[in-house]
Amino acid sequence: MKPYDLIIIGGGPAGVTAGIYAARQKLNTLLITKNFGGQIARKAVAIENYPGFESISGLELIQKFESHLKKHKIEVEKDTVSRIRKKDKTFSVLTGSKKEFHSKTVIISSGADPRPLEVPGEKEFIGKGVSYCVACDAPLYSNKKVAVIGGGNSGFEAALALSSWAEKIYVMEASPKPRADVENQEKAGRTGKVEVITEAAVKKIQGKNFVESLVYQDQKSKKLIDLEVGGVFVEIGSQPATAFVKGLVDFSERDEIVVNPKTGETKTPGLFAAGDVNDIPYKQVVIAAGEGAKASLAVSNFLRNSNL
Amino acid sequence: MKPYDLIIIGGGPAGVTAGIYAARQKLNTLLITKNFGGQIARKAVAIENYPGFESISGLELIQKFESHLKKHKIEVEKDTVSRIRKKDKTFSVLTGSKKEFHSKTVIISSGADPRPLEVPGEKEFIGKGVSYCVACDAPLYSNKKVAVIGGGNSGFEAALALSSWAEKIYVMEASPKPRADVENQEKAGRTGKVEVITEAAVKKIQGKNFVESLVYQDQKSKKLIDLEVGGVFVEIGSQPATAFVKGLVDFSERDEIVVNPKTGETKTPGLFAAGDVNDIPYKQVVIAAGEGAKASLAVSNFLRNSNL
Repeated sequence: MKPYDLIIIGGGPAGVTAGIYAARQKLNTLLITKNFGGQIARKAVAIENYPGFESISGLELIQKFESHLKKHKIEVEKDTVSRIRKKDKTFSVLTGSKKEFHSKTVIISSGADPRPLEVPGEKEFIGKGVSYCVACDAPLYSNKKVAVIGGGNSGFEAALALSSWAEKIYVMEASPKPRADVENQEKAGRTGKVEVITEAAVKKIQGKNFVESLVYQDQKSKKLIDLEVGGVFVEIGSQPATAFVKGLVDFSERDEIVVNPKTGETKTPGLFAAGDVNDIPYKQVVIAAGEGAKASLAVSNFLRNSNL
Repeated sequence: MKPYDLIIIGGGPAGVTAGIYAARQKLNTLLITKNFGGQIARKAVAIENYPGFESISGLELIQKFESHLKKHKIEVEKDTVSRIRKKDKTFSVLTGSKKEFHSKTVIISSGADPRPLEVPGEKEFIGKGVSYCVACDAPLYSNKKVAVIGGGNSGFEAALALSSWAEKIYVMEASPKPRADVENQEKAGRTGKVEVITEAAVKKIQGKNFVESLVYQDQKSKKLIDLEVGGVFVEIGSQPATAFVKGLVDFSERDEIVVNPKTGETKTPGLFAAGDVNDIPYKQVVIAAGEGAKASLAVSNFLRNSNL
């Protein structure tokens, strides 16, 4: 069977935008995704930073993206991907349900998931006080007490960002010393709003309809402590969805796929990565969409230049 | 007077998105632009590749961008910029009407203009057969004869892209030989639809309500030739709007501002560039918006890290 020009893996903002651009370039394209929306699908609060929509629910934005994509001629396979290989000049993509597809090029836009805490209450209160995105949700915590879980750079950066809004920010770190740069710690200190709690093992998030407190164990005294907070920001890293592509790409220290940031190219010719799965440092809907467009235009360029 | 945290120059997709992100990070921001919309403002046909809007007029999208921006606390100065200087750690920005503003950081998102042909008929038929954007407008020329002005790589790439739609594409080159890579020329040749006309000096574009032909002078015979075409794509380069920033940044061979593509940083600390003005190879509304978000987040990071 004739290989596709392009297989896109993932149906978030990067994948959908790559699909729209590919279709408009008449590339014979297959998009493989379990669901549309990517990380937007998990957002319980309105999105207010995708330009053109002053405020739109995640669900509504996903629907707009999906119908925009489907206005074009593009095949969609509702599946996961379990493996990508390259033989000669052709990629083979194996899906979770054991179908195999072939393509001249691949754009990986399978996104990333924030690493969860995995404590009771976390899942229940997502969007009701538990957040994985300070840039999105900080304004909701004006004059409230909040906790940031994780004392690395991203935890302290989250605390700094929150200090424009929140009344008080607890940074909870499991080890005896925060892992963040001293500079970041000092800056957080200068806000006068940040209190660092070390050797804290978070055990539970609780509340009625909305988060009201978190319970942590002080590792020195072994005491359980109930800390009153209206919000919990989890900043313990992310998990790019990339296991299926090992061997074909290089990974950053955060397990992101290393790309040429001008084009989304990986080290394997014909293999591109766009959106939260790659090592562009900022993760936002509009940035992912832009990266998807770039990758798709770069794919066209690649197909022309390699006479595929 | 206390300097701004950030001055954004330009009100196109990159500048507006940078502004939205800056306001949401509570940066004290001034946006300087003559008009909103940037290159979108010149588009006479609907925009169909900004994800979320299946088809939207340029005017409508600009209005949405502008009102989204103005929902936030941000100062806007309706002016041009004539000069940027840096003294110690502060930028001074001088406007066309001789006002001077100071800021800790600057994002240049002043866009780029396609270089015009400057022949009679060109301006009158913009959006009525004259286009500077194949990626945007190619589908409108299904089964039509079109001319691409410019025999460089971008001209031949335009011809290739058009070959999916148009019936016939003339590539008009002023010199005796096209300047494009041989490979690009061969590929265009293989479509069977492209005819290269060398030593052609385009003199006029004409028609009634829509382009009907262009007149060129054959430089060998000196004869004027009337070539029947329904569309004219001008691909003779672009002019980034960057004269005011000379000395502070490096320029690419296309006069674009060289940036770190992950962050939009230029070689001058605190000075960033986003959108069509920088050297990211692909120029699209959604890409410019994504770059604007990146630059704004990188500005926040810079302000934190440099204790400004």
